[in-house]
Amino acid sequence: MRGPGLRLELEPALTATFAYGVSAAGGSARVCARVGDRILDLADAAKRRGFGQVDLLTAPTLDPLLAAGPDVWRATHAAVREWAADDDVRSLADVDLLLPFTVADYVDFYASEHHARNVSRILRPGQPELRENWRHQPIGYHGRAGTVVVSGTSVRRPRGPVPTEGGVQLRATARLDVEAEMGFVVGVPSALGSPVSVDEFADHVFGVVLLNDWSARDIQAWESVPLGPFLGKSFLTSVSPWVVPLDALDAVRIRSPSADTDLPAYLVETAPWGLDIDLELEVNGEVVSRPPYRAMHWSPAQLLAHLTVNGASLRTGDLVASGTVSGAAPDQVGSLLERWAGERFLADGDEVVIRAGGAVDLGEVRGTVAPAR
Amino acid sequence: MRGPGLRLELEPALTATFAYGVSAAGGSARVCARVGDRILDLADAAKRRGFGQVDLLTAPTLDPLLAAGPDVWRATHAAVREWAADDDVRSLADVDLLLPFTVADYVDFYASEHHARNVSRILRPGQPELRENWRHQPIGYHGRAGTVVVSGTSVRRPRGPVPTEGGVQLRATARLDVEAEMGFVVGVPSALGSPVSVDEFADHVFGVVLLNDWSARDIQAWESVPLGPFLGKSFLTSVSPWVVPLDALDAVRIRSPSADTDLPAYLVETAPWGLDIDLELEVNGEVVSRPPYRAMHWSPAQLLAHLTVNGASLRTGDLVASGTVSGAAPDQVGSLLERWAGERFLADGDEVVIRAGGAVDLGEVRGTVAPAR
Repeated sequence: MRGPGLRLELEPALTATFAYGVSAAGGSARVCARVGDRILDLADAAKRRGFGQVDLLTAPTLDPLLAAGPDVWRATHAAVREWAADDDVRSLADVDLLLPFTVADYVDFYASEHHARNVSRILRPGQPELRENWRHQPIGYHGRAGTVVVSGTSVRRPRGPVPTEGGVQLRATARLDVEAEMGFVVGVPSALGSPVSVDEFADHVFGVVLLNDWSARDIQAWESVPLGPFLGKSFLTSVSPWVVPLDALDAVRIRSPSADTDLPAYLVETAPWGLDIDLELEVNGEVVSRPPYRAMHWSPAQLLAHLTVNGASLRTGDLVASGTVSGAAPDQVGSLLERWAGERFLADGDEVVIRAGGAVDLGEVRGTVAPAR
Repeated sequence: MRGPGLRLELEPALTATFAYGVSAAGGSARVCARVGDRILDLADAAKRRGFGQVDLLTAPTLDPLLAAGPDVWRATHAAVREWAADDDVRSLADVDLLLPFTVADYVDFYASEHHARNVSRILRPGQPELRENWRHQPIGYHGRAGTVVVSGTSVRRPRGPVPTEGGVQLRATARLDVEAEMGFVVGVPSALGSPVSVDEFADHVFGVVLLNDWSARDIQAWESVPLGPFLGKSFLTSVSPWVVPLDALDAVRIRSPSADTDLPAYLVETAPWGLDIDLELEVNGEVVSRPPYRAMHWSPAQLLAHLTVNGASLRTGDLVASGTVSGAAPDQVGSLLERWAGERFLADGDEVVIRAGGAVDLGEVRGTVAPAR
């Protein structure tokens, strides 16, 4: 953990809900914060209070704040907390929220052992549940940054080639699924050729979002050998509008299961970044699953260390997703493929909400299925 | 083909070398053009000649020009050609060239049948050379946009986990390879949910670059199942500094081999976008291979149609690479894995140049191997 001097001393009530976003209030994009039940207009507050780094909060995205680094992040969190305690701060009601930052590269991992085993059992019965490489390193791939959208955007049922009895046909997917995930938002870039160690995670990552990695299982299964998922994933990825800063997660940091395994040095954490957070997956108003983030084999710090161990650089706005969060129990899985054993998927009009409550409020990511064009 | 009225009537000498780039002359990034043997300062020329869309040429990247669309592209090509014929235009000598555009998403395909078969024979002997899906659709994956660099950038030998006799170890790659490719640069965005048809290729794509998809074969082989290449590719991708507009390729457009196969409607071209271009792969001053682009099974218009058939949107700066260009003969392959049958790879200090000459001059992409840190 970071030393006490660096720790943000939030009141418990504020810890529960403390996040940054971008609203479309008044027709222009404005940086705002959600503190408890209130939404603060940070551009307005920063100007009126003479905030030292006003440019960071008057931009139309969180990008400048993300790039500013941990010292500025902490100073900003403290200032926002102070403003929130003051009654004359301008609050916003019923704001339309925008994608809060510019997504640079989007990388998606596969960090849940339960998910990897479940998918293997369903899609490749009789084969080894875990691939040979899985326990040695986090397995991941690059996704499409240009189709990351904010919560509320409807998901148009995608078309793609799938095998049918009459041969391979371009079809609307019959197996539209979700993946309940968390995404980690990079603020501070790293240099090409310089790996980011597990201990440097909080020097680079600003905060977290909830993420729904919409997936077309039939398209994905047919196309994925040997280069991985492509059309089956690239049509849409939804994120929550609120970015919760890492500082607000201190109380839920725990060791991840990989800490008890034999790891290469670059994946050994000296301070844990596993997260004791429960997600909730809801379809048409019914909670179908409660995926526990604490069961994720690899922590986000390990994901980032792996992503950069080959010298790949980070940019402000890189979005690093955990992969589907699945626990051991049938009602703890993060995809419908696992929940309903491949027998049932999303219908047109279905609404999916992923949220995280409890000790840390990450808000929600929501989307409704629109029929294929 | 486009109608004669839309065709840019370049002189043969100009057709041979006509490209846009960004120079670092005078300490600031400036849009320039290479026309024949001259490099023109377009910011200077556009201002002095009162060019109607001067903002497109006074930016520090090609991004605004890319976004402007085909009508403006044609008007700009014509203006540049006129300026080049004039002796008083400001020429630049020995310019340092920068990455000419902001890479949005980077997608890499696998469009050469010979490459797919060669790799399969070498890495998976005894298994079917072509996967079941390969002839039905272009196979591709997303790469890392943030590590696309301009020609001349050295490639630091990457580390990554590889299996060894003593178990999986974090090692500097022992199998550093190249892939000679062409990249297609998207100018005009497309809307989410609206596929771009093969016939709309030239409405969206501005031009082409040469591309070297540096690859660490040992890291790649170990990590790639089931999600595809990751660390084995993400450390660096190099592109040529000159973007050659599609208009300059009219004379080399041919039918690609897939045109003679049974294709789904969305991959059937009414006008061909196969390209009769010979690449050259040089290692330490010796040409080791001459990969013929005409042998590529899928045309770039087919790649773009596939990429968007699921509704994925395009952004200005999307870079769509062909995959390794390999022909049928042993001296026509685009990777060293194929050229030297996996027996020899790049050593520290080796310099690799990929160029394209002949009817269309695409310039070159160059890089030297730096030792692992």
